[in-house]
Amino acid sequence: MNRGPGSPGEVDPAYPFDIDGALDPGRFPIDEWALEETEYSSEDLGTTETLFAVANGYLGLRGNVEEGRIAHTHGSFVNGFHETWSIQHAEDAFGFAKVGQTLVHVPDPKLIKLYVNDEPLLLSEADCEEYSRRLDFRTGTLERDLVWRTPSGVRLRVRSTRQVSFTERHLALMTFEVTMLEGVAPVTISSQLLNRQDGEDEYHVALAALGEGDDPRQAHALDHRVLLPRLSKMRGHRAYLGYRCAHSEMTLACAVEHQVEFKGDPRVNTEVDDDRSKTIIHTRMSPGQTLKVTKFAAFHSSRGVPADELADRCARTLDRSIKRGASGLADDQRDWLKDFWARSDVEVTGRPRTQQAVRWNLFQLAQATGRVEEHGVAAKGVTGDGYGGHYFWDTEIYVMPFCSYTNPRQARSLLRFRYMMLPKARERASELSQRGALFPWRTINGDEASAYYAAGTAQYHINADVVHAASQYLEATGDWDFLCREGAELAIETARLYADLGFYKPNGTKSFHIFGVTGPDEYTTVVNDNLFTNLMARFNLRRAAEAMEVIREADPVAYQRLQRVVGLRDEEIDEWHKAASAMFIPYDDVLAVHPQDDAFLDKEVWDLLDTPEEKRPLLLHYHPLVIYRHQVLKQADVVLAMFLQGEYFTQDEKRRNFEYYDPITTGDSSLSACVQSILAAEVGYAELALEYFKRALFVDLADLQGNTVDGVHVASTGGVWATLVQGFGGMRDTWGVLSFDPRLPADWDHLGFSLHRQGARLRVDLTQSEITLTLISGGPLQVRVVDQRVIVSGDAPTVVTLEDQGPVIRGRPPRLADIGVVPHVAHDVDIDDLHLPAT
Amino acid sequence: MNRGPGSPGEVDPAYPFDIDGALDPGRFPIDEWALEETEYSSEDLGTTETLFAVANGYLGLRGNVEEGRIAHTHGSFVNGFHETWSIQHAEDAFGFAKVGQTLVHVPDPKLIKLYVNDEPLLLSEADCEEYSRRLDFRTGTLERDLVWRTPSGVRLRVRSTRQVSFTERHLALMTFEVTMLEGVAPVTISSQLLNRQDGEDEYHVALAALGEGDDPRQAHALDHRVLLPRLSKMRGHRAYLGYRCAHSEMTLACAVEHQVEFKGDPRVNTEVDDDRSKTIIHTRMSPGQTLKVTKFAAFHSSRGVPADELADRCARTLDRSIKRGASGLADDQRDWLKDFWARSDVEVTGRPRTQQAVRWNLFQLAQATGRVEEHGVAAKGVTGDGYGGHYFWDTEIYVMPFCSYTNPRQARSLLRFRYMMLPKARERASELSQRGALFPWRTINGDEASAYYAAGTAQYHINADVVHAASQYLEATGDWDFLCREGAELAIETARLYADLGFYKPNGTKSFHIFGVTGPDEYTTVVNDNLFTNLMARFNLRRAAEAMEVIREADPVAYQRLQRVVGLRDEEIDEWHKAASAMFIPYDDVLAVHPQDDAFLDKEVWDLLDTPEEKRPLLLHYHPLVIYRHQVLKQADVVLAMFLQGEYFTQDEKRRNFEYYDPITTGDSSLSACVQSILAAEVGYAELALEYFKRALFVDLADLQGNTVDGVHVASTGGVWATLVQGFGGMRDTWGVLSFDPRLPADWDHLGFSLHRQGARLRVDLTQSEITLTLISGGPLQVRVVDQRVIVSGDAPTVVTLEDQGPVIRGRPPRLADIGVVPHVAHDVDIDDLHLPAT
Repeated sequence: MNRGPGSPGEVDPAYPFDIDGALDPGRFPIDEWALEETEYSSEDLGTTETLFAVANGYLGLRGNVEEGRIAHTHGSFVNGFHETWSIQHAEDAFGFAKVGQTLVHVPDPKLIKLYVNDEPLLLSEADCEEYSRRLDFRTGTLERDLVWRTPSGVRLRVRSTRQVSFTERHLALMTFEVTMLEGVAPVTISSQLLNRQDGEDEYHVALAALGEGDDPRQAHALDHRVLLPRLSKMRGHRAYLGYRCAHSEMTLACAVEHQVEFKGDPRVNTEVDDDRSKTIIHTRMSPGQTLKVTKFAAFHSSRGVPADELADRCARTLDRSIKRGASGLADDQRDWLKDFWARSDVEVTGRPRTQQAVRWNLFQLAQATGRVEEHGVAAKGVTGDGYGGHYFWDTEIYVMPFCSYTNPRQARSLLRFRYMMLPKARERASELSQRGALFPWRTINGDEASAYYAAGTAQYHINADVVHAASQYLEATGDWDFLCREGAELAIETARLYADLGFYKPNGTKSFHIFGVTGPDEYTTVVNDNLFTNLMARFNLRRAAEAMEVIREADPVAYQRLQRVVGLRDEEIDEWHKAASAMFIPYDDVLAVHPQDDAFLDKEVWDLLDTPEEKRPLLLHYHPLVIYRHQVLKQADVVLAMFLQGEYFTQDEKRRNFEYYDPITTGDSSLSACVQSILAAEVGYAELALEYFKRALFVDLADLQGNTVDGVHVASTGGVWATLVQGFGGMRDTWGVLSFDPRLPADWDHLGFSLHRQGARLRVDLTQSEITLTLISGGPLQVRVVDQRVIVSGDAPTVVTLEDQGPVIRGRPPRLADIGVVPHVAHDVDIDDLHLPAT
Repeated sequence: MNRGPGSPGEVDPAYPFDIDGALDPGRFPIDEWALEETEYSSEDLGTTETLFAVANGYLGLRGNVEEGRIAHTHGSFVNGFHETWSIQHAEDAFGFAKVGQTLVHVPDPKLIKLYVNDEPLLLSEADCEEYSRRLDFRTGTLERDLVWRTPSGVRLRVRSTRQVSFTERHLALMTFEVTMLEGVAPVTISSQLLNRQDGEDEYHVALAALGEGDDPRQAHALDHRVLLPRLSKMRGHRAYLGYRCAHSEMTLACAVEHQVEFKGDPRVNTEVDDDRSKTIIHTRMSPGQTLKVTKFAAFHSSRGVPADELADRCARTLDRSIKRGASGLADDQRDWLKDFWARSDVEVTGRPRTQQAVRWNLFQLAQATGRVEEHGVAAKGVTGDGYGGHYFWDTEIYVMPFCSYTNPRQARSLLRFRYMMLPKARERASELSQRGALFPWRTINGDEASAYYAAGTAQYHINADVVHAASQYLEATGDWDFLCREGAELAIETARLYADLGFYKPNGTKSFHIFGVTGPDEYTTVVNDNLFTNLMARFNLRRAAEAMEVIREADPVAYQRLQRVVGLRDEEIDEWHKAASAMFIPYDDVLAVHPQDDAFLDKEVWDLLDTPEEKRPLLLHYHPLVIYRHQVLKQADVVLAMFLQGEYFTQDEKRRNFEYYDPITTGDSSLSACVQSILAAEVGYAELALEYFKRALFVDLADLQGNTVDGVHVASTGGVWATLVQGFGGMRDTWGVLSFDPRLPADWDHLGFSLHRQGARLRVDLTQSEITLTLISGGPLQVRVVDQRVIVSGDAPTVVTLEDQGPVIRGRPPRLADIGVVPHVAHDVDIDDLHLPAT
């Protein structure tokens, strides 16, 4: 399954994508509500550790085997629990990011080792008669079931479960059950809570420390002891460990308690030291006997509360959880997920493998956002330490739409998480000589942590991304209170930044320009008038101005508060309107496309089809200067703008832009395929839309980027939802109107989903011939279907017949070479050949 | 004298520059042939250590006091003797420089401590009745003379001298002479050779290690023991130390021997350990008695020869030097410098302070290049470790012209130093996906060491700079043998790089463009069609093509050798001609100036006059993104192109370009003032030309950049020569014609200098009314003076009357604001004021 770096964006090679070959059905049987593995493999451990991770947005446990070894990367994470370090720049400059931030591996509660006749169960060597591992999307539980024949001939069934609770945010719950099938033998279970930060078996960290494979997408390796012991104690059978991070001074406590069920008298002994608590259960078992251990583990972290106070919180979590009991908690978990699926499920009827993959992706959204509350959603959620556990724009552009339309309460919390960063964003803007606020490109604690400004700090669009998410949340909810406070302050400070960053050209046209920024495409950096940035900044400026006018009109008290709290002035509103109206939107008359930036179309075109597979992704094989001077994209940029600001462009403009940029988009970023799918669907490239969708859908399940080991590509899971609902479902929500202009793939029978809208819940069912809109609660709602305005009321479903579903263009856009744009391939030079010709 | 960071480029503040105030005449008396200090000060130790350094291009000793303390930076250097280290990028990418290189401090031979009655002479505390320190430009010797009254009332005269020999390249020679004036006392001299790399008194290294003041212009601090002891031994009174660098594996040996002259029987004892040899001379002195110690120190280094073999070389150097004797060596030194001054002196008659400063600068050129041979000339020569001892384009553009016209043999060696780097430059080009060769922006060993590609690797003009220097050398010498071998190979590989780097735009004009490069101005990076780069690349392509045609015609054997050795093909010559002819040279019709790059004139103009002094230099106070998005220059770029490729531009074009760019040039680089002076002189801004000249002249003497502590700004010393000869003297050498179009400053009476030209030596004397050309040897020469062709023969001086000396424009170019270009100031935001208005 580990295919090495793939290329989901660019469609070749392997077109069409083989969905049946993506997951071996022999090993991963089709199940619409679970991901199941029926064969153990140590070949792709890192990938399956990610695919079978359990998490709730706050706490996450990778899918390591209970026995601990062998593992690619052990990993247990608490969202936002990080260490800081001083970024050393090889050549420093003013304003470069100074504070590195890295998600810390918290003590691992997953370890439950089994010894029979003192022989350890070790899956890589064990003789297993049966084996299955199953992540159930409805129970929210990872289950493993195997029958082990030990070297001495004893046979046992070993069943285990693992869940991170959605209802008890700080709780992980595990069970481990051994049933003797044949033979009599002494059985020992060693259940641990292990801080392995400095341990020798931390393969991943050791590798990183070697400085080998400097993949910028991996976490920074810390070279000091991070977790300083502050607490290690026993109270009854309950063990506590507490720590403080050496530099960030964040604190953590964890506690673990076991329940043992056995008809007999097992010896149970627990010991604890600074880095480990170990509970040993020992007994002798005969056929028919079952030994079951239930393990409750609680984690609390803080920016500074002493570890012993956090230990008290762990105690309360454990008290409550133990009182509720494992089975009660499992019920709660099921109920929580039942509600989640009712709000969030997307049905793709009659295509079970697709349905399974869709639900795996949606389940990852639950695991990334379920109890995230006022934290961000990291690039990998809490399933891995890729990108150091940092929050990017992924949250706002890729995850927030899902939240706003299925779980607006969570969407509000995510926006508050950004709002809480405003003071630091103000400081950062000032450091960069600008007014207003500038959000960090990547961060955990609010400080800019991007060590490479060209593909980091220069992405000034982050501000507008935040406002776009807030605006979408407001469309979905109409949350006036949020608008007047957090929303308004965010809009004001971000608009101030753009108004100050841009400038009017002193020419007749008085156009407004933004120079020296990087758009979403990181294969082109620090450019002038990046279309995406200009469009999003215009949106931000307008949205801020309009919101202030609405508030001034409707709620003078709120307006006065803004004048007082953030110094809002009436003139600013006019200034924002003026800048928005004058915003320069570049257009190329000859090619009839919108340039990605003012110089983009002047560059040489990189011919991707002549670039060998082993040179992908480009960023690992070419110097940035080589990449930057060509027309080649890491990810959708103009095309993303055509989606996020689509209301300002004609269908024809969108199509031409898509046709121009699609052939030069590598998709070396996992954020690209879903966007390319949505636009392809809208402009009519139906087959291509499906191709990109599949690549987004399987980015982790088939490890298409080659780095699923580092954690789930959470943005892509959000993108899968968007592709289904906004791409195929054709949903848009602009200027206060919820609309549908569907694009159901030709061989799909039915797509169903539901949406939250201004307090109502709307069910959408789409077939090849009609769309059915059903109010589940609230309403009525005014909705547009294609060009038709319909009212959906609670009385009965509204059925709208669809004559067709948009234009259909067969195949794919032509290569640029075929439309007269000359391509160029950055080449490799064999200097021996070149300089010493044969004599 | 330490004025903090100044701003030589931008004329305000302090216009006109106060040449009399630049050096306090009370402390630094005017002397046309020496820099003398008559008062000791510990206030500006770092600066005077640099100003009084002695060096020969190979070996350099900073002007530390003999007693060792107190010092700002101890420093003894062997050109090219460096340690390597692995560059850690905060965020790595393919092709980023990997091997850091840092000039190593070699064991310090300068230490000669004096104790009288066991009381140490310590200048910072000593009661000195007389004091003077004098660096004599004709003897090449640093002399100190003082009378010390010790705390116990004894009076002594202490005289010392220090020289680095120009005739014995590996030798440093010191004398230390104590004469008892009053009192009788025991006197001890402790003369040492001290490897202080890990010593506590290495203030500078310790400071850097703290990571404070991350000034990218300072050397990288190494955190490991660099010099691993390989040898430490005594043979008679001669002590040897030998080392190997931990990572670079370069080797070094040094040896020291003393001669003691005293009428009496002093005890002399020498001991040696791994890091120190110490010779103690002890005696009792009475009034009238003189004790004199002569110290010979030899240094040899290598890329790998074992230290004991290098020790043998030291032995031979010492044997020969001791045989010649201190006084013989002093004679040799004087003779060598007599020849140097005959070739290199520039006379500014009747302006003694200016003359003194000019000679100090020229003397620095002797110290940087005298015996450099096939090493490069580092940014600081061998007078400090600023910029890590790296070689930049400084060698080719700022130092080579001086060498080519005064010491062509040395110029040839410097070109061979680049030629020896060709294999690594080929590898680097390949790594950057290009054909041909790409020289590193900064290096010692040939590997790119620039850790910040935007202001390093992206400066692709380095290739053409090398070819420009080679071409100038060829004009000056007509060295056919060099042209056919090293010169041709350099031209071919560099032309290949540009032919491959650039591309033809697929439009009607078929113009040739170079994208994604940085020009000389590091306040604007990674741009398209940088005028300087395009012009210099065009020059390189043409020069290569023409040279190949000449060789093909005149020396078929040499041509065939090039075909064989570097695979030269006839078609390439056509390709280079074609690319050169099609090279895009941007021009702006509206402003009637040449844009620095295709986007430069679209940016906002940075208003330097509204930028407070404490925000200078900009690079230490603004994020690169802020600087990059404005029209503001670190150093001359278009203006430098107008000088180096001046034959392609009209006087009017040059003036307009100068007028546009000069007001937005900060001069934050010391490479700028001389270039601005030359162009100002040419286009008629005579006063301004003189201002910039003074700033270049005093950049170190008045510490105008605030970092003279890190070593001499060698490029600026070359720029002083160029300003005198090419700026005021108006010398050019293009298309085979040596020409003069003088611009003598209005209040100067006479400027005299001599030039080497195709084997002849030409003396030039310029007054306000005429120019006199005298052949010293060789000739006859055809020369152009203004528009007049004259033949200079050996018969008699040729006198040409000058009607005037070019146009004269009073004052300075107007601010851009005054010609309608709207300036903008990057501002600081007091976030408290802004966000919390007074209630």
